This record gives sequence, C-alpha cells and structure tokens, in this order.
Amino acid sequence: MAIVIIRQDGSTDTWKKALLAIAPDTEIYSYQEDHPKDRVSMALVWKHPKGTLRDYPNLRCIASFGAGVDFIFEDTDRPPKVPVTRVVDPKLASDMSEFVTGQVFNCLKKFYQYKVEQLNLEWNPGNYSRIEDVTVGIMGVGELGMTLAKDLKMLKFKVLGWANSTKKHIDVPVYVGEGERNKFLSQSNILVCLLPLTADTKGILNRELFGILPVGAYVINVARGGHLVDEDLLKMLDNGHLSGACLDVFHSEPLPKDHPFWRHPKIHMTPHIASVSDIPSVTPQILENYRRLQSGLSLHNLVSQEKGY
Amino acid sequence: MAIVIIRQDGSTDTWKKALLAIAPDTEIYSYQEDHPKDRVSMALVWKHPKGTLRDYPNLRCIASFGAGVDFIFEDTDRPPKVPVTRVVDPKLASDMSEFVTGQVFNCLKKFYQYKVEQLNLEWNPGNYSRIEDVTVGIMGVGELGMTLAKDLKMLKFKVLGWANSTKKHIDVPVYVGEGERNKFLSQSNILVCLLPLTADTKGILNRELFGILPVGAYVINVARGGHLVDEDLLKMLDNGHLSGACLDVFHSEPLPKDHPFWRHPKIHMTPHIASVSDIPSVTPQILENYRRLQSGLSLHNLVSQEKGY
Repeated sequence: MAIVIIRQDGSTDTWKKALLAIAPDTEIYSYQEDHPKDRVSMALVWKHPKGTLRDYPNLRCIASFGAGVDFIFEDTDRPPKVPVTRVVDPKLASDMSEFVTGQVFNCLKKFYQYKVEQLNLEWNPGNYSRIEDVTVGIMGVGELGMTLAKDLKMLKFKVLGWANSTKKHIDVPVYVGEGERNKFLSQSNILVCLLPLTADTKGILNRELFGILPVGAYVINVARGGHLVDEDLLKMLDNGHLSGACLDVFHSEPLPKDHPFWRHPKIHMTPHIASVSDIPSVTPQILENYRRLQSGLSLHNLVSQEKGY
Repeated sequence: MAIVIIRQDGSTDTWKKALLAIAPDTEIYSYQEDHPKDRVSMALVWKHPKGTLRDYPNLRCIASFGAGVDFIFEDTDRPPKVPVTRVVDPKLASDMSEFVTGQVFNCLKKFYQYKVEQLNLEWNPGNYSRIEDVTVGIMGVGELGMTLAKDLKMLKFKVLGWANSTKKHIDVPVYVGEGERNKFLSQSNILVCLLPLTADTKGILNRELFGILPVGAYVINVARGGHLVDEDLLKMLDNGHLSGACLDVFHSEPLPKDHPFWRHPKIHMTPHIASVSDIPSVTPQILENYRRLQSGLSLHNLVSQEKGY
C-alpha cells in the first residue's frame, strides 16, 4: 500500500518529509513523479487537478489536507464511491477564531480606515463602536463556527448561530434552517460566513440575503469564494446598505488584478490566510487514518457523500 | 458656586448640555463666555490653555475630563494647592482594552501589512502568529492596565505587568520597579505602554529600553506621546530590532504632516482614539464630586500631587 500526494502549491516535499519523519517506512509519492499507481490506497489532496484521481484503481480513501472538501466534490471525475475524509484540527479552529476575532475588532475600531488615512496624511479622530454595541451572527456552527462563538461570547459579544440542524454543546442561540434564517440575519450587525461550500450554499451571500441584514452591517467571509455573489456585494456596499466587508477567500485565487475588490474602499482583503493547516498538528491524524486503512478499521473524520461536508 | 468648563476641542456645549440634563440647576459656564469668575469652585478641564486656571480665586477642585492629568501638572501657572481629580471609568478601561486587544491581533495576523498589500495589488500569503506564540508585557497596571491584563489572559495570552509598586487583585505576574524592569522587558514580545506621564516616565520608551526587548518585538503606545523618544523608535525599527509599532498618542496632536511617523512602513497610527471619555458614563461622577464639594465632603478619585497620578 502507498500514499500519493496531489497538490500544486509547491509544498509537496515539505509534507512528504513531515510524514516520513513520523513514519519512515511509509511509501509516499508525489503525483508528479513516476510511481506504481496500483499500489496507492490513499490520495492526500489539496486542490488537485481534476481527473487525476481516476488514475488510481485501488484507491480506498481520498483525504483532504484541510477542513474543506468542496474541491473534491467538484471533481466529478473522481471515483465516486471512495470515502472522503477531512482534517478536524483544534488548531484550524483556534486559528480561524483568532483571525475572525481580530477582524471583528478591526470593524469596531475602524483600524483599516485609520491605516488608509495615515497613508493619506489625514488626522480624523472619529467615534468607535464597542463590544456591547453589536451582535455577531455566525453562519455555520460546525467545528470552526462553534469555537468562534465560544471565544466571542467569552469577550461578551452577543453571538447568534445559524445552522441547518439543531446544535447541542453550544452556548449561544442557534437558528435553524430556512424558516429561521431571516430572524437570524435581521439581528446580525456583523455576519461571519463559515459554511461548508455545497450545492445548497453556493452563492448564499447574495443581494437578497444582504438586504435582510440591518443597515450598516459588515460581512466577513472566511469560508469559500463560491459562497459570495461578488457583484451583489459591490451593489450593497455602494448603495450604503452594507458598511464594509472583509474577505479572505475568492472565486479565483490569487484574485485577478483587474477584479474590483482590490480597489474598493469598503473591502478589506487578506490572501486566504485566515487558517492554514499546520503540518505538525495535521500529520499524525493523516497517518492514523492510513494505519486504520491498512488494518481495515473505520476511518476518522469521514465526510458525508450526500451532504458534501 | 459654579463650574467652568475649559477645553478647546469644540465639545464644550455637548458636555454642558449633558451635565444640565442631569442637574438642571447647576451653574455652568464655558471659559470663553462672560462669567463671574469668583463664583467658580470647580474647573472641568481637558488640555486647557496654560494659565487660564489662575483667573479663579475661589477654585477648590481642578477636575480632569479624562483618566489623564499630565496636562494639569504641566501647567505650572495653576493654583498649586487646589486638589486635582480624574475620571475613573470602567468604560475608559474596557474601551482601552478592546482597542489594545484589537491591535495585538493586528500584530499577530499582519492585517495592516495585508491592507497595504491590497492597495498595491499584491497577493502575498504569509505565515501568521498565534496567541500561544507571544508574551504581552504591560507597563503600568493601574485601572486600565489591569483590565487589559485580565482580558488578554482570558484569551490565553501570556501576560506580564510592570509597576512601581506591588499590585494586589491581579492575576498575572507583576514585576516591580527598576530592579525587575529588565526581566520584564526581555520577555515581552509585544510591549504595551499604559503608564501615567510624570517626570519619572517621560521619555521612558527610548533606545536603551527597546534594546532589552527581544529581537522582533512590537510596541504599542496608548498612554502619552511624551513617553516616547520618537527618534529612538525610528532607529530601532530601521535597524530591525523592533518589528513594528502602533501609536495612538504623539508629542503634538494632530501630528505635524512632516513628521516621519506618517510615512514609516512599520508604524501604524491612530489619531488618539483608543479610549475617549464617554459622556453619559462620566457626567454622573463629575456631578457627584461637585455635590461633595458643595457639602464639604472629601472628593472621589483624587490625584496625588507628589506622584502626579
């Protein structure tokens, strides 16, 4: 049995070395080197070229390097019955929470505005908002959303969640499904999108949804570019309904330089760095699943083929 | 008996109205209108023109509108024996804590750098730091510093304090005095200055002090411009010893446009907005002290004339 790594971001060797450091006898290949494809039982993938998974006749697990698996389900050429797993890592959740918490403070205190004013040599002291002034609405209260909700609540933010099923083990009000969506949205001064990207959630951040948010609401998208209808965000910022947006993810990454987001004064971009899989933290769970595969045990962190997350 | 308001920022009428809304029978004047100076027993001041306090022969209290009183002690023409009071407001402390917490996240996640890169159409994903990677050192653990220490500790930051006397009721290690200063500094990756400005602390943020911080340290000054030796900060940023600084206060405000801070890529400025006295929250305590003055009772929040804070 062997593992193949399929990713195109130049970090294949780093991951291979990290896996071999823990389990030196493991047979691991990059998909770009010559390798015995019929020996591969696990494909470790991150935004793999579509179609590449077809080449492995004995594949028994497609493992995402991260929490997201949307790119796997978008590859309709993949062997459809092979189980898909993802990373569930406390570090991914706490990193995401730190990032979003920081962006929420940026919104309250207008730090980005002051930075731009500094660059323009402008001294314009203005009012600020306080934690007590806003309600943060979190769309998607899975592993990541739940950690964020807990941290913001500890800081005394009013926090609401929205999910497609009732959640236990969470200490904030969670609104469920389409029926309670508008009640959730109409209270959310700061809306954070942490949904998985599926057929149901594609384009969910659109004009109709933004219209239900309170006037002056602020949008933080740290999930996937595919959740957002770009032109709808621009419209709702330009007509003053939304006060700003912070975006870490985009339809195409890097975002093409002629995209209007780059130069929009109310849009604050980061280059998909909110939460990145941490190699020392992720390698043990990948190897654990590989061992379970070898021993015929059930896999951890399996993704539902129906739900797509 | 009467109150005079002496401030030059255009908010005198707002404060006057807010005080009269609670205590309509109070005799309150702006120092710029004609008024019976011998009736004034309390001067409410914020960065008053030096010398103006001499005009009130029956003054019995000089009350700062904020937590800081340095501008009162710098006015050597003030009647020297008149008691000085300041504002002690939980809102001032929580506002300051929110501001600094946000700036600490900005430092960890390099948000300002990404904002500037966005303006330059640059997509440069990089590494980020985590809460667990840094120790925050707070110089000055009075009302404001103590609240910040508590909040950062709740977020799981490693937090140290430095003060000139032993502190009770604080749940982080506090280093005391000159003797323990270097032990404190050498551990502080992020240094926050929240000291009162006195003869002892003027220019305390200087080259010698910065040199004791770990390489790559980041400095946040939210106290007073007078704490900082501007050219020393520039030197230690330019030689790479410090990684950046966030400044809310300056020797002269607004900062003159030819000052090198405006254009320095490692300096992030805000226009003295970290924590601003909140009118509804502050007016009752000002009026309470005025009533105590009228009844001959001891005043709240008296400032030590020797210590200057």
